[in-house]
Amino acid sequence: MHDHNASSPRPPRTVVLLSGGLDSATTLAMAMARGLEVWALSFDYGQRAAAEIAASRRLCTHLGVPHHQVLPLALDGLVESALTGDEEVPADGEGSRIHGVPTTYVPARNTVFLALALGLAETIGARTILIGANALDYSGYPDCRPEYLERFNALAAVATAEGAAGGPSIRVEAPLMHLGKADIIRAGLALGLDYALTVSCYAPGADGRPCERCESCAIRARGFEEVGVPDPILRTETP
Amino acid sequence: MHDHNASSPRPPRTVVLLSGGLDSATTLAMAMARGLEVWALSFDYGQRAAAEIAASRRLCTHLGVPHHQVLPLALDGLVESALTGDEEVPADGEGSRIHGVPTTYVPARNTVFLALALGLAETIGARTILIGANALDYSGYPDCRPEYLERFNALAAVATAEGAAGGPSIRVEAPLMHLGKADIIRAGLALGLDYALTVSCYAPGADGRPCERCESCAIRARGFEEVGVPDPILRTETP
Repeated sequence: MHDHNASSPRPPRTVVLLSGGLDSATTLAMAMARGLEVWALSFDYGQRAAAEIAASRRLCTHLGVPHHQVLPLALDGLVESALTGDEEVPADGEGSRIHGVPTTYVPARNTVFLALALGLAETIGARTILIGANALDYSGYPDCRPEYLERFNALAAVATAEGAAGGPSIRVEAPLMHLGKADIIRAGLALGLDYALTVSCYAPGADGRPCERCESCAIRARGFEEVGVPDPILRTETP
Repeated sequence: MHDHNASSPRPPRTVVLLSGGLDSATTLAMAMARGLEVWALSFDYGQRAAAEIAASRRLCTHLGVPHHQVLPLALDGLVESALTGDEEVPADGEGSRIHGVPTTYVPARNTVFLALALGLAETIGARTILIGANALDYSGYPDCRPEYLERFNALAAVATAEGAAGGPSIRVEAPLMHLGKADIIRAGLALGLDYALTVSCYAPGADGRPCERCESCAIRARGFEEVGVPDPILRTETP
């Protein structure tokens, strides 16, 4: 690491996992507010990710994020290929389950995302990775819990060249972990974050508008209701 | 999981990480010899991986592996993109270092590979992931050590839906961990593995033949020398 200017040392670098949803957008706004040099990292895991990537790009522009990388990742291919064997295939797409888990759960997703973030962090010399995991996601997703993140940090401490050599290691931080959705929204609004730029819906319409029926839309709606402000994403654009 | 035939229950499934090198090929041969239902997993991380993927395909045919998935993975993109910023760029390609680590080390590589293997294992109901990590790789690569794999297993125990619900978790096993290169070669030869199908060289010639100068070629040569058999990959094909 080197300074551009002796009188203004470069701020610490951080990797921020950015899905374009409400939580990761808030995490990104918090990282920018802390004055970190932010490297946002998004994943293009196929056609369904297009809306998320577009939202991620809009958010980086809105918040003035200096670095944003979008990594192609054929996770759908991994899972779909696995199901072209003689395993039972779910009868329909939406709402079906693989091994008892909703299909909205991508196996080992956060482990894959955090591993790639670790690779980027090691490459650029970042000491932290910020992820928008929070308590409301506990129930369905094993890899959003504090215990999971603690164990990932224990792994990260020995997984990098510098860490293994006794140097500083890279840590994952989840600043939203113990916040409810309303608290998250309040924090983002206080930082000037425009939630109209985010996407939360699992199954948006062809026009990109949220379905207002899925679990993610419902959690978001309850959050804005509790804060007492309208969700800007639901604004009617033409009166 | 269901049986095809009540009188012959399906053998346990395992995921085997397969790079096409000597160690992963031996691990694959061991898994087949144990009668496991093997799902080999290789990664296509760009042009340099072409020879490894070709070797992986040959090995799966040779050993009769029923499932082989090759997952595109833009790891080079992650690292290269990171270096297009204002960071110092190494002066030359081969032999240069990023943050003190040889460029043959891909940041967090095994963490990324194991995370994706964990996703596949969870999807297909495999309980084990086999990796060819071994003691000879300790020095340069932090993510080949026993301590690293122990911590990955601690993570995996809470990272999957079934494990988090108190069910069985998925474990990484490294059957070669405490073997020297000669012992590995002896084990593979005893299982009928044809090492002519493997690739070890970091910088093969345009004809695909090993350079016989890089560290990987040197370790391989010492192994065959200790066993006292010629390396079949060095056979002159036309006299």
